[in-house]
Amino acid sequence: MTDFDPTTHPHRRFNPLTNEHILVSPHRTKRPWLGQTEPPQTTALPEYDPKCYLCPGNSRTSGEKNPNYDHTFTFENDFAAILHPPAPEAPVPAHPLLTVEPVYGACDVVIFHPRHDLTMARLSKSEIGTVINEWIRIYTSRGTEPGIEYVQIFENKGSMMGCSNPHPHGQVWSMSTIPSIPAQELKSLKRYAQSQIPSQDAPRENACLLCEYAQAEINTPGDTGRIVVSNEHWLAVVPWWATWPFEILLLPYHRHIGSIDELNTEEKEAFADILYRITRRYDNLFSCSFAYSMGIHQRPVPAKATVDPADDDNKYAHLHLHFDPPLLRSATVRKFLVGYEMMGEAQRDLTPEQAATRLRGCSEVHYLENP
Amino acid sequence: MTDFDPTTHPHRRFNPLTNEHILVSPHRTKRPWLGQTEPPQTTALPEYDPKCYLCPGNSRTSGEKNPNYDHTFTFENDFAAILHPPAPEAPVPAHPLLTVEPVYGACDVVIFHPRHDLTMARLSKSEIGTVINEWIRIYTSRGTEPGIEYVQIFENKGSMMGCSNPHPHGQVWSMSTIPSIPAQELKSLKRYAQSQIPSQDAPRENACLLCEYAQAEINTPGDTGRIVVSNEHWLAVVPWWATWPFEILLLPYHRHIGSIDELNTEEKEAFADILYRITRRYDNLFSCSFAYSMGIHQRPVPAKATVDPADDDNKYAHLHLHFDPPLLRSATVRKFLVGYEMMGEAQRDLTPEQAATRLRGCSEVHYLENP
Ligand SMILES: [Zn+2]
Ligand SMILES: [Zn+2]
Repeated sequence: MTDFDPTTHPHRRFNPLTNEHILVSPHRTKRPWLGQTEPPQTTALPEYDPKCYLCPGNSRTSGEKNPNYDHTFTFENDFAAILHPPAPEAPVPAHPLLTVEPVYGACDVVIFHPRHDLTMARLSKSEIGTVINEWIRIYTSRGTEPGIEYVQIFENKGSMMGCSNPHPHGQVWSMSTIPSIPAQELKSLKRYAQSQIPSQDAPRENACLLCEYAQAEINTPGDTGRIVVSNEHWLAVVPWWATWPFEILLLPYHRHIGSIDELNTEEKEAFADILYRITRRYDNLFSCSFAYSMGIHQRPVPAKATVDPADDDNKYAHLHLHFDPPLLRSATVRKFLVGYEMMGEAQRDLTPEQAATRLRGCSEVHYLENP
Repeated sequence: MTDFDPTTHPHRRFNPLTNEHILVSPHRTKRPWLGQTEPPQTTALPEYDPKCYLCPGNSRTSGEKNPNYDHTFTFENDFAAILHPPAPEAPVPAHPLLTVEPVYGACDVVIFHPRHDLTMARLSKSEIGTVINEWIRIYTSRGTEPGIEYVQIFENKGSMMGCSNPHPHGQVWSMSTIPSIPAQELKSLKRYAQSQIPSQDAPRENACLLCEYAQAEINTPGDTGRIVVSNEHWLAVVPWWATWPFEILLLPYHRHIGSIDELNTEEKEAFADILYRITRRYDNLFSCSFAYSMGIHQRPVPAKATVDPADDDNKYAHLHLHFDPPLLRSATVRKFLVGYEMMGEAQRDLTPEQAATRLRGCSEVHYLENP
C-alpha cells in the first residue's frame, strides 16, 4: 500500500476548538472552475463620501451627527441586534423543545479611521495600535457592566461578505450570555486542560490547548509548516483544521494570555505589527481589498472579583483571532460553504500547508503603495 | 415589567439537533437594507444546452458521453472529493493535535430530469417520485458497500449558492466515516431518547426528539405556528431554531421512520407530494427559481445484520430533510452568515413564525405556469 501523502490523499482533520472535522480533498485542486464568479470589488473610493453614515461630520439614520473624529470613533448601532436591559422574563414554554431565553446587551460600532477609502491593510502600525487601544477600552468598559457575560469584537469586511459600507469599521456586541461558538471553544479548552493528552511543552496542570498548538506549529519544519508570519509575541498560522482557503488563526504564543486587557506595551506593539503584516499579505495575495470576517476570542469578560478563580471556567480562555476570508483562486472566485458542507461537514481542496506557502510568499508592501 | 413578546424582544432559541443557539432579533426586521444585492437569476434557459455536461447525449470532462436518459441518470463525479478504497494508513502524528484520518468512498451525481431548464419545482409528482426511487436505490446500494458508514444525499441549487450548472441535479457522497453534522445530530437524538425530559406523546423508552418535536408543532395553534404545509405522512415546518430566513425542516410524523428505504408506497407518494408543494411555494415566494442547499439526514447506512440492535446508535436516527435557502427579502437580497454569526452564533431578524406565515400564503401553482 502507498504511504499517506497529505497533498494527495483525501483525509479528515479534527478542529479541537469546535469539535468538528474538516474533509480535505487535496487531489482535487486541479479541477477546472465552473462556478459563479464575483463582481470585482470597487477600488476607487473617495477619501470622504458625503453619503456615508460613518464619515466624519455626516448624519446617521438616527439623526445624530458624527463628530469630526481624528482616529477611531465608537457609537451604539442604530439597528442593534440586542437591546439594553431590562429584558422581560421568559414565558413558560408549551413544550421543553420550545424554550426561549431573553437576551440583553449593547451593540457598538467602532470606526477605525476617518478616511473612507482605507482599510486596516492601509493603516500605519501606530493607527492600528489606536484601534487596539479602543478595542481594549470597550472590552473593559462593556465587560464590566452589570449582567454582561460576553463581549464579541469582530469585523466583517467586503461586499462579498454582505458588508454594507466600505468605510473601515468593526463591531462589538456585548451580551448577557456566552454565544454558542465561544462557549464550545471554552468547553474544549477546559476539557483539554483537564485531559490526559500527553503534553510536550507545559506541566499538565497548566496545559492550554492553544499554547501547545502554537508550540506544535513552531516545531513543524518550515517548508511543510503552516506559519504565515510571526514576531516576538504573536504567531499567524493557517490552522491545521482551517475551513476557509486562506483562514488565519492569530495568537500570542510567548505566554498564556487570556484577553486583550492583559497585553503589556510590547505585546500590544507586536499585535499591531502582526495585524499590519497579515492584512497587507492578504491584499497582495490577489491584488484586491481582501474580504473577511475577523473576530477576537478571549476571556468572555474581564475577571470579576466576585468569582472564585477555582470556579471560573473563563480562565481557560487563550486570546486568539480568527480571520475567515472567502476568496479561493482569484479576486473574483470565492468558496461557498454549501451543499455537503451544510449537511455533512466542512470540506476544502487546497491544504492549509499550501495556503500558508502562498501567504508566506506575499510581500508586506501593499500593492497600491508599490511604486 | 412588560410581558415577553417573541415578535419584539431579542431572545435565543436552542437547536436540539446541533446543540447550538440562534439569536433572534425580531425588532430589527424594519431596518433599511443597505447591503449587497445579488444579480437576478437567469430564467430563460434552453430545454437542451449543447455545452451542458449533464444534458442527455453530451460529453463530460472525463470524455464519457451521457446516454439519452429519459428520467434520472446517475454517474460518478469526475472530480470526486473522496476516492475509492483502499486508502493509505494514517501516519503517526508529530503531535496529538496534528492527527489525520484517511477517508474513502464515492461521489455520485444524480440528474433529476433530462430537461436543462427545469428544477424540482417544475417537475410533476410522478417525476419527483422517480427521483425519490433513485435516492433509495443509491442509499441502499452504496450504503451496503464494504466499509461505507455514511451516505449523504444532497442538492445545492442556484448560482447564489455557487452551483456551477442549472441543470437539475443533486449529489450523493458515500464514505467511510460519519461527518460532523449528522454525527452531532445522532448524538443529540440518542441523548434525548435516554434523557429524563418529560415526554408528552411517546412512552419514554421510545422517545424520539423529532417525533416529539413534530407533535409539539402540530399542537401549536395555527396562527402562531410554524407549519408551512403537511399531508397525511409528512410535515414541513420552519423549525423553532431556524438559521436561514425561510429554512424548512421536512419530516415524516405519523410513525418513527429511520431512512428512506423504510418508506412504504403511500409514504413515498406523500413524500413526492410534499416536495412538489414546498418547492413551488419557494419559487412563488419571490417569483424566482429559489436557491437552496437541501440534504437528507437519516440512518447513516441501512441496518447491518452483523450489528446487534442494542449496540446500534444509528437506530436513533429519524429521517428528515433540511432546506437551507439564503434569500431574505426579495429575489436579489440574501442573508450572509458572516461577522457575529461566524464568531458568536447564528442570528436572525425575521422570526420563524413570520417566515412560516409568508410561506403558508404562497400558492402551489408555479408562477411560470400561472395563466
Ligand atoms: Zn476561537
Ligand atoms: Zn438533520
